[in-house]
Amino acid sequence: MELVLTKMHGLGNDFILVDDRDGRVAGRYPYPDLARKLCDRHFSIGGDGLIVVLPSQSCDMAFAIFNSDGSEAGMCGNGMRCFARFLYEKGLLRQKVITVETLSGPVVCILENDEEDRVMGVRVDMGPPRLLPADIPFVWDGGKEPLEVALKVLDQTFQVTPVSMGNPHAVIFMEDIDPVPLEIWGPAVENHPSFPEKTNVEFVQVLSPESIRVRVWERGAGVTLACGTGACAALVASVLTGRTGKKVEVLLPGGRLLVEWDDRSGHLYKSGPAETIFETSIRI
Amino acid sequence: MELVLTKMHGLGNDFILVDDRDGRVAGRYPYPDLARKLCDRHFSIGGDGLIVVLPSQSCDMAFAIFNSDGSEAGMCGNGMRCFARFLYEKGLLRQKVITVETLSGPVVCILENDEEDRVMGVRVDMGPPRLLPADIPFVWDGGKEPLEVALKVLDQTFQVTPVSMGNPHAVIFMEDIDPVPLEIWGPAVENHPSFPEKTNVEFVQVLSPESIRVRVWERGAGVTLACGTGACAALVASVLTGRTGKKVEVLLPGGRLLVEWDDRSGHLYKSGPAETIFETSIRI
Repeated sequence: MELVLTKMHGLGNDFILVDDRDGRVAGRYPYPDLARKLCDRHFSIGGDGLIVVLPSQSCDMAFAIFNSDGSEAGMCGNGMRCFARFLYEKGLLRQKVITVETLSGPVVCILENDEEDRVMGVRVDMGPPRLLPADIPFVWDGGKEPLEVALKVLDQTFQVTPVSMGNPHAVIFMEDIDPVPLEIWGPAVENHPSFPEKTNVEFVQVLSPESIRVRVWERGAGVTLACGTGACAALVASVLTGRTGKKVEVLLPGGRLLVEWDDRSGHLYKSGPAETIFETSIRI
Repeated sequence: MELVLTKMHGLGNDFILVDDRDGRVAGRYPYPDLARKLCDRHFSIGGDGLIVVLPSQSCDMAFAIFNSDGSEAGMCGNGMRCFARFLYEKGLLRQKVITVETLSGPVVCILENDEEDRVMGVRVDMGPPRLLPADIPFVWDGGKEPLEVALKVLDQTFQVTPVSMGNPHAVIFMEDIDPVPLEIWGPAVENHPSFPEKTNVEFVQVLSPESIRVRVWERGAGVTLACGTGACAALVASVLTGRTGKKVEVLLPGGRLLVEWDDRSGHLYKSGPAETIFETSIRI
């Protein structure tokens, strides 16, 4: 069959999007196989993952995402922005506030359009952070919410603030993050026994009360260009330790996100870009 | 401007092909910049290189190839097969024997079509091997054509047969190439002082007089899925050391090539696949 697809990226995290609301693809090609095939960067389209548009009973639309190895993921911020822009620009939905069903629960996306109705960015409700040690999970007997806990890693001691955004994060502030040997310190913190389910690791440099720089070591994935939950965790730790306000720009190697910790709802809102690279069709 | 392009691969070595016979692209976007931009695997199309179709005074067509870092290369076997198939299938040329101008000199391609005129493979004249130490170059005082010269590398001694296919190769035969630690032995041989311009390295396992397996460490590029000149050098060394006939299939991690050392011309002819992955257009 001929498969029409769109290649998009959010901060360099790149995806192949397929509309399979009618199930035509699923009937011919299981999504994990299709993801493995299409995501190959030398023999096929290439991508970090395959995103499938599906109908939903509970939300406006359902989001399914498969990594390049065929495994299914839950929520992915960069992928979700691409998904929302795709739905709007292809005319699959007409509203600017979109509820999306995911494996990790429902997600609300808000399109940020200019006067000519072009999608300039997408804002995603990332939910509230969780700070209790048991929720992260983080092994600690020091009290309710651990902030800048001294952790011995390799031959040094880091001041670590653990935050959960649905997944665990260890935030470490540094004067300058450029010299950080991410490939060495990242996995050492990731696998520290204080994080029984391992952890994502963020090295954060505060530039001003409105701006931070972050380098991320992703649990199970290593160095990545951008990590949305990592940007949120970095803001939460920055606010809790009195380093920034509640609305900051987060500068990541892949680009820039705007993250806001909303007082009323207690939720984090993350705005960022989603770009279409090209459209094509391929025989599968 | 809107740029129409075709993504193709030969044994997993993947390229973006652009027809710029009228110079419209060159006038707007220098090819090295365009190659860097388009070859980015996260923010754009992605590819090992950009191949540009250009008019030629001396041949049927001219071939220009730029690596993903923007540097211009000379000849590339995998890219040349894609180029030839593209010319024929797009109707830019109608003959099945095509002469191509390259930075490394003219190249002759022969289309191998089936009864329905579909391109099943492309045969490329790779020219003659050069075996004199000064031509490779290889530092040696043992006689005219070095065969299986003992070379001390790291903590062992390899029997190395040096061959030039326009670029230097060091061919090493092994009972079994699977356990070869290519990332360790490759660079050690590449930088051995006997090869003053460094060398590509081929570890070769002879399966039969008609079939060999090859793993390649490419000079300056590291482990690659397939290397056409490496396949030719492996055949030359296999013939010269009495291990195979003059026509063999060469099994590489990226796939299969057929290589023949023609008695009459003394040239090597290499046949292999070229596949179209997709076509698209992109704004640049």
